[in-house]
Amino acid sequence: MKNENFANFLKYCQQRVNKKLTYVLNEKNDDDNLLKEAIIYSVLNGGKRLRPTLTYATAEALGELTEDTDFVAMAVELIHAYSLIHDDLPSMDDDSLRRNQPTCHVVFGEALAILAGDALQSLAFIQLTKLNKVSPKISLTLVSSLANAAGAEGMVKGQAIDINSVNRFLTLEELELMHHKKTGALILASIMMGALSTGKATKLQLDALKNYGISIGLAFQVQDDILDVSGETKIIGKLAGSDQALNKATYVKLLGLDGAKKKALQLHESAIAALEIFDGNAKQLRAIADYVISRKF
Amino acid sequence: MKNENFANFLKYCQQRVNKKLTYVLNEKNDDDNLLKEAIIYSVLNGGKRLRPTLTYATAEALGELTEDTDFVAMAVELIHAYSLIHDDLPSMDDDSLRRNQPTCHVVFGEALAILAGDALQSLAFIQLTKLNKVSPKISLTLVSSLANAAGAEGMVKGQAIDINSVNRFLTLEELELMHHKKTGALILASIMMGALSTGKATKLQLDALKNYGISIGLAFQVQDDILDVSGETKIIGKLAGSDQALNKATYVKLLGLDGAKKKALQLHESAIAALEIFDGNAKQLRAIADYVISRKF
Repeated sequence: MKNENFANFLKYCQQRVNKKLTYVLNEKNDDDNLLKEAIIYSVLNGGKRLRPTLTYATAEALGELTEDTDFVAMAVELIHAYSLIHDDLPSMDDDSLRRNQPTCHVVFGEALAILAGDALQSLAFIQLTKLNKVSPKISLTLVSSLANAAGAEGMVKGQAIDINSVNRFLTLEELELMHHKKTGALILASIMMGALSTGKATKLQLDALKNYGISIGLAFQVQDDILDVSGETKIIGKLAGSDQALNKATYVKLLGLDGAKKKALQLHESAIAALEIFDGNAKQLRAIADYVISRKF
Repeated sequence: MKNENFANFLKYCQQRVNKKLTYVLNEKNDDDNLLKEAIIYSVLNGGKRLRPTLTYATAEALGELTEDTDFVAMAVELIHAYSLIHDDLPSMDDDSLRRNQPTCHVVFGEALAILAGDALQSLAFIQLTKLNKVSPKISLTLVSSLANAAGAEGMVKGQAIDINSVNRFLTLEELELMHHKKTGALILASIMMGALSTGKATKLQLDALKNYGISIGLAFQVQDDILDVSGETKIIGKLAGSDQALNKATYVKLLGLDGAKKKALQLHESAIAALEIFDGNAKQLRAIADYVISRKF
């Protein structure tokens, strides 16, 4: 898929990871189905699959896609899915709509939503114990990467800063730290883990991918803030203006709409520059950078 | 510590894991301290440390305690700590008292309590990437054991059954399934992971430990139900009668107080019988079986 146009590549990645996730989530038959239903409802709901797509694109840029890549792609998506369920809870962002569907707690209740998220985190780590081409040592590095990206020094820290930022003034620096943690850490991990899972990445390549990942992680968030003020609920799949309503710090608030758009373009430029050392194999990574700042949802 | 009396052994294990946990939880310095505070508050609060004690006792029965054992002991306790925070939430058991202290969400709010639990789950897996005496392959087996014990087929499933059991009649079989999952899975994992982390366990020993673990896991829960009706809030550290108040299924409700006590004794007997193949090195495992059904909190 290296030379496919991006729309086809994205569709390919979405279908590939969805098929694998559908299998994993339906593996066990059991009677008490509510937990399983809540999990399936929250994972198989038409998400963009940006993180798995990054994993696939990176693995392809360095080597080839294998079943090992699928396990990594599932792991990052499962962590993402858990974080969305918990972020939407009434005590957090209190969102009732996600991907144009009522959020998990609206359908299944708060308790089951919390549990579904908890179970998804465990399930993510289970995937990383299934790789069979790479050495157990590399698999353990993947566990460590994912756990660090997800935990108290990564995504959860970002969310903690976020909930404390409601009705509080954040500087641009604080906003940036929050996003680096909240969404950036897992986006970066999706890329780095994709690279590690090939067993072929050089130090130079890993450094370049890190710069790329940090830039597009932030660009993704800037675009999110732009969409929150200029997007339509129907298209973005969640309530437009919900961050504004919560009086949250956003790039648009700190830089203005034009300033935020400029910022997104600068980050896009950095991301593309970081990929200089790669040849045509990184075509899809470049396309993802374009997509991240031009997406409408 | 193989031949110490149990009170000293328990104290030794508690102090050992507490020291390690204190170090790990304070490793990172940072400004945004509320998440860290919530985590430390919930972990370093004088818990019994039954699971780490099981890990240590098992490792000692098969070999010796090393730093690797500490990482496993911390991992199981961190999962336990996360589960307590989430179980206590208003939308779950709505408990305001735990170990004689206000629960995490009472002190830090619901959002931060959810996040502290989430972060602790990640932190547990991070510990399992740090072992250095055993092979990466064994470490990966530990990741798999813990993730399976914690996730949708283990602890979380048990909690999901539990929240659905409020005001509903459970048969003894359903009650047993719930407990096998909710508390049994992690207790069993604490033992099996302790054994695996020595790199020395035989199939015969693992089978025996599995039988032992299943019995004491259930015995622990039967005793919990007994304490819920016969214990005092001050001593058990949580509100006595809280399960009764929620109209939850318990062993006492299904078997009567005497029936529950008899059941605990039977399970104790099975646990001791399972340890037959072990010599004096399993002294502490036997003592834990005694402790589990005689404890007052």
